[in-house]
Amino acid sequence: MAGMVVIYKQPADVNAFDKHYFGTHIPLAKKIPGLRKYEVSRGPITTVAGPSDIYLIGVLHFDDLDAMKKGMASPEGKAAGADRRLYAPDESGIQMFLFDSREV
Amino acid sequence: MAGMVVIYKQPADVNAFDKHYFGTHIPLAKKIPGLRKYEVSRGPITTVAGPSDIYLIGVLHFDDLDAMKKGMASPEGKAAGADRRLYAPDESGIQMFLFDSREV
Repeated sequence: MAGMVVIYKQPADVNAFDKHYFGTHIPLAKKIPGLRKYEVSRGPITTVAGPSDIYLIGVLHFDDLDAMKKGMASPEGKAAGADRRLYAPDESGIQMFLFDSREV
Repeated sequence: MAGMVVIYKQPADVNAFDKHYFGTHIPLAKKIPGLRKYEVSRGPITTVAGPSDIYLIGVLHFDDLDAMKKGMASPEGKAAGADRRLYAPDESGIQMFLFDSREV
């Protein structure tokens, strides 16, 4: 499998973020060809030490990195990427990691 | 489900990190009661913009946050946590996020 982990810091306007993320972004992203599973954090995100400054984590799963790259390069993938820049335009508020993974 | 995402920056000594992580830490962590799945990134971790300074990402899955907390508070959970401080003692080199999640 391959995963894309997207980590969003606390947004300035939580209601606007939620409305866009759940109402527009998820439906757009779910159209990306090759997407196998889309998980979203629910409730507070903590660290072992306590609360974090992270608001939401999304994890998108594809069969492998090649499928992920093809999906992201498709019109649907580009639309989802462009949409992300609308509700989370500040790159310093986001971390996004792409990787192949295996179960151990 | 609940996930624990652990993100490790590039270690100073990759060989020592790998030896400890794969040889000692994974076997210890797999004994944590309630652990349902343990995924580890394979190969380079990139961002949409290109290479990252991240070396490895581990994702541990539990049924829910309560099961995760109980697992981490068990002797096996404490042993895995203590072991992590041996191979990755610098807290600034790690991000660790705990959260409930749902499929969308």
